[in-house]
Amino acid sequence: MTDFAVTFLGTGGTSPSPQRGLPATLFKRGGTKLLVDCGEGTQRQLWISEGGLTDLDAIFLTHYHSDHILGLPGLLNSYQLRGRDRPIPIYGPKPLMRNLNRFRTLMGGHTFSLLRAHELAPGERVDFADGFSVMAVPVQHNRGSGHAFGYRLAEQNRPGRFDVEKAKSLGVHPGPDFGKLQAGHTVRGVKPDDVIGPERPGRTVVISGDTAPTKSIVMAAHEVDLLIHEASLLTLDRDWKEKTEHSTALDAARIAREARVKKLALYHISQRHRAKQVLKEAWNNYMGAIVPNDFDRIDLHLEG
Amino acid sequence: MTDFAVTFLGTGGTSPSPQRGLPATLFKRGGTKLLVDCGEGTQRQLWISEGGLTDLDAIFLTHYHSDHILGLPGLLNSYQLRGRDRPIPIYGPKPLMRNLNRFRTLMGGHTFSLLRAHELAPGERVDFADGFSVMAVPVQHNRGSGHAFGYRLAEQNRPGRFDVEKAKSLGVHPGPDFGKLQAGHTVRGVKPDDVIGPERPGRTVVISGDTAPTKSIVMAAHEVDLLIHEASLLTLDRDWKEKTEHSTALDAARIAREARVKKLALYHISQRHRAKQVLKEAWNNYMGAIVPNDFDRIDLHLEG
Repeated sequence: MTDFAVTFLGTGGTSPSPQRGLPATLFKRGGTKLLVDCGEGTQRQLWISEGGLTDLDAIFLTHYHSDHILGLPGLLNSYQLRGRDRPIPIYGPKPLMRNLNRFRTLMGGHTFSLLRAHELAPGERVDFADGFSVMAVPVQHNRGSGHAFGYRLAEQNRPGRFDVEKAKSLGVHPGPDFGKLQAGHTVRGVKPDDVIGPERPGRTVVISGDTAPTKSIVMAAHEVDLLIHEASLLTLDRDWKEKTEHSTALDAARIAREARVKKLALYHISQRHRAKQVLKEAWNNYMGAIVPNDFDRIDLHLEG
Repeated sequence: MTDFAVTFLGTGGTSPSPQRGLPATLFKRGGTKLLVDCGEGTQRQLWISEGGLTDLDAIFLTHYHSDHILGLPGLLNSYQLRGRDRPIPIYGPKPLMRNLNRFRTLMGGHTFSLLRAHELAPGERVDFADGFSVMAVPVQHNRGSGHAFGYRLAEQNRPGRFDVEKAKSLGVHPGPDFGKLQAGHTVRGVKPDDVIGPERPGRTVVISGDTAPTKSIVMAAHEVDLLIHEASLLTLDRDWKEKTEHSTALDAARIAREARVKKLALYHISQRHRAKQVLKEAWNNYMGAIVPNDFDRIDLHLEG
């Protein structure tokens, strides 16, 4: 089975704490390695977690608040020093190029020229190897100065299950005829649908980025294997909620429940809160939610 | 006795490693708190070391290569979020303002306006409370695009030792007359010099910043209590030496020996080297040199 794992490189928000670095999440699916957000300190978190500067295939930015992006110049300068000359695609909401330009004088000219800026529209999809893709999910944050995205990372659907016994009983013999059926051809009057079940979903993850609770995440995260949702606030912080466009742990739990996600991980944890408080609030609505620590890894398993 | 301590917040150079953060060194002398350099991740190192974002009185930059400065926007943004409205003086070589401007769009406007840029000339001194001062020492690095400094941090000289027994034997009695002698007045024919020894030096530290071996450090570090010298290279790296304008561990040891410093600490350690190798090379010329780890602290003690 192809590996599909999420590694949390920074689970804090706004300011780092001794326990939690700033947002950066590593997704490895087969040979594809993607980073979502790149807070200050990410290059070092990568070293600690991966034993080196993982050769990322792309970086996705959720928005351009400084806690999510200040690790970019250091990471890219270090890539350059290590001789990377493969371009680095950077994806993000509008206005991406204007925001990358803020780093222009902090990277060597050669390093900056390695960047490939790809501004995404809400709902736009980026395809990687083997049917793996990332879709931009519009969220509610930073509305004063641009868009903000969460991302949905998804494998393509897998073919339905082939019912060997049924095929045999219908008179098709194991061998080339099985291959023909799986390729969609009718064999000896037996149609593929007679012996092959419905397509099975690939593995899917949604990461919210920073956002007030929003229906778009409920929709994008419908029955996903893993929802990684921000929980910057607790219900007792409700006075800040409108101003900061963040979610409480309870908001995140409600969204996870409504979307019927299989697993909920909360991140972007404030220095003001302890994981225990965040968990307690989330479990009221979504039993089993977790608050990963930096360097925790979640492996996604195929079912069925 | 007034405390005077050095805390190493980042002892690596160029790129961080799991063990070593990027350059940042905290000097606390009495109530004065100064930071020299501010590599990526410094705000988090401060949290881990000090249990909070120490309310720094000033930041001194040695030069403007990105490994020494990329922690500035995050640190200052976090100060601002915590409500600091006391301006933050930033000292450094020419061209300081042009370099700080590189961060302008990465800090909030209010945060940027907290910065007070003070460009220093080689040899220029900045005075802090209680006779404590910092002097810019020109070094040999980055000559293509500007100056680079080390810094000499020094207490003012202390008065000489008062010889109580001798004063009594000369007929001066303990009490107000002792005070008069110490204030420089002649009492009953006894001159201050008869009973007070020569001025005693205050405590001094020199930190080199990045530099090729240079006589200016030998002079500035003459008999200092502590020389913190970069050791980015080993002798086996000599091919890089001219190109990168760095020092080997052996260079640093020779300088320490020539300057007769009381203690030598090596920093700006490359990911390519192990501390053991660096020490081994340094001890050939300066027995007892140390390679501090991140968060190590050296307390400077008054002698005599």
